[in-house]
Amino acid sequence: MEKVAVLGAGSWGTALAMVLADNQHDVRLWSHKKDHAAAINDTRQNERYLPGVQLPSGITAFHDLAEAVQDVSTVILVVPTKAIRDVCRQLNKVLDRKITLAHGTKGIEPGSFKRVSEMIDEELSNQLYDKVVVLSGPSHAEEVSQRQPTTLTASSENLEEAKKVQDLFINGNLRVYTSPDMIGVELGGALKNIIALGAGISDGLGYGDNAKAALITRGLAEIARLGTSMGANPLTFLGLTGVGDLIVTCTSVHSRNWKAGNLLGKGKKLDDVLEHMGMVVEGVRTTQAAHQLAESQEIDMPITDGLFRILFEDAAPRDVVDQLMTRVRRQEMEDLSAILNNRISD
Amino acid sequence: MEKVAVLGAGSWGTALAMVLADNQHDVRLWSHKKDHAAAINDTRQNERYLPGVQLPSGITAFHDLAEAVQDVSTVILVVPTKAIRDVCRQLNKVLDRKITLAHGTKGIEPGSFKRVSEMIDEELSNQLYDKVVVLSGPSHAEEVSQRQPTTLTASSENLEEAKKVQDLFINGNLRVYTSPDMIGVELGGALKNIIALGAGISDGLGYGDNAKAALITRGLAEIARLGTSMGANPLTFLGLTGVGDLIVTCTSVHSRNWKAGNLLGKGKKLDDVLEHMGMVVEGVRTTQAAHQLAESQEIDMPITDGLFRILFEDAAPRDVVDQLMTRVRRQEMEDLSAILNNRISD
Repeated sequence: MEKVAVLGAGSWGTALAMVLADNQHDVRLWSHKKDHAAAINDTRQNERYLPGVQLPSGITAFHDLAEAVQDVSTVILVVPTKAIRDVCRQLNKVLDRKITLAHGTKGIEPGSFKRVSEMIDEELSNQLYDKVVVLSGPSHAEEVSQRQPTTLTASSENLEEAKKVQDLFINGNLRVYTSPDMIGVELGGALKNIIALGAGISDGLGYGDNAKAALITRGLAEIARLGTSMGANPLTFLGLTGVGDLIVTCTSVHSRNWKAGNLLGKGKKLDDVLEHMGMVVEGVRTTQAAHQLAESQEIDMPITDGLFRILFEDAAPRDVVDQLMTRVRRQEMEDLSAILNNRISD
Repeated sequence: MEKVAVLGAGSWGTALAMVLADNQHDVRLWSHKKDHAAAINDTRQNERYLPGVQLPSGITAFHDLAEAVQDVSTVILVVPTKAIRDVCRQLNKVLDRKITLAHGTKGIEPGSFKRVSEMIDEELSNQLYDKVVVLSGPSHAEEVSQRQPTTLTASSENLEEAKKVQDLFINGNLRVYTSPDMIGVELGGALKNIIALGAGISDGLGYGDNAKAALITRGLAEIARLGTSMGANPLTFLGLTGVGDLIVTCTSVHSRNWKAGNLLGKGKKLDDVLEHMGMVVEGVRTTQAAHQLAESQEIDMPITDGLFRILFEDAAPRDVVDQLMTRVRRQEMEDLSAILNNRISD
């Protein structure tokens, strides 16, 4: 039995807290909103983010960060990308010893193109942890909260830290693998949102399963190309945090990115879509970042490029698809081999 | 404008014939049933296999094989796996010159474990063609017949022959890539049916998207392992004919293999399922073949092994999933790296 703090009481943080409680750990679930923490303790539910799900007794919600992390051996950060730096700065003030640190946040920082673990490394005192662990994979929070079979990957530059996190979470419903490729695991989780937007656009245009499968497959090849140039092992994109997460995100109508794409495909403009959604659509900012990176590093990313033109240059979705379908004739293997070359020449 | 014979007037043969006719070729669509050929010419529809779809005027249906292949430059074989050898023996009698030969049939011969192109090579006189081309990819016939965007891969040991087939089919709706890895393209199309059965079982048990994405991802890794041991380039499994086709098959309720798996997951026995379906479920025989191959070559295929126990040893689907979820803790990358080792040591 360990004491673990889960920081962030959204749907994913709450689902992860439930797994830890199922495994008999003493779990402190921190919300930055006082009312929210109180309501969770009161109702034994997280009505806003996981409505109808009964929380195990091992979970206690906190609003005071110092109280939440008191005596814990492990901290799991599950706040939005934009809150990562702030929460780390708060942690510097309330933690007084070394803990195991993991995060379950998928995103890239706009402008700096930093991964979540890089943001943490820049903000959190290095006296407080050894190496960050990332926990990622194909996982709707709702299904994890219903104890449906799910797989995740825990990755860190220090594999012992990854194994500690694996041990905390693994059980008969949740299978956790480890991976040494932190960069690939983090980039897979972030870049997949680009392709999810594209899948939504394809569905919104009324195109079928053939088009969507082509988009996912060719999209996977291009995010793997970009990821490899950023230091990822290309193989990671073939695993749970790559193709696995891509499949879940692109074939589920619950995905926020898919929904935004779907509205774009139906002819709505980006501003209207974002207003309609009323929340951050990570894939929009990720497309912009990937487009900039691809240009500066001269990486061929035709799908990302097409999405960029739809999002920011008012191109018509149908014209972009037509252009993608009539590009020069290629050997499929040229692209795939290109991805692997980095690895083979290692 | 070329004269092309498409042998096999099922849904896929008819859809491919429509693409060729759209590209202004003179297409002869052969059915082994006289009534069927006559009805197609009469109604300008293939009511049995593509109901409601109007056929272009460039298609003429034939029942006489000699008439169908007279003067054609190219023959596209799209008959079921079990009819391949017989149709090739008939072709030996009616062809008198060299043609370009392609096939669009997905399967492995039970017992011999031969790929479709190997069966063709064994039966068809080598005076009649240079190298077989296989045409495969993520493609519901219905969507191709509706001119929905679709991608395919044409592969052959002779890339010039593959390019000829690419030229015949490519247009604004259908994007055709080429690949030199015939073995990988054929095996991807056949082995994916194993995973489609598994995806159906998972859905039939009431499991969610997380479980299915895990199954598809881990299943892809194990069919790639088997395929690589049979001579395929592992990269091919990451392309349209691998992960692409897998996604279409596993996420569509139209897939025959998914349907059979779904009934098994709901507790039906194999005999009842096959009786209920009233047609061949390719994935059942492919699971048996893959299981035998994996045992003889000592390849770790836990998902295929679990399916085999459900299909042929009366194991309960839920017990098999529980066993898969509680296997020893592993590094995800170990498996993925193992796939690539064959290639890297080439």
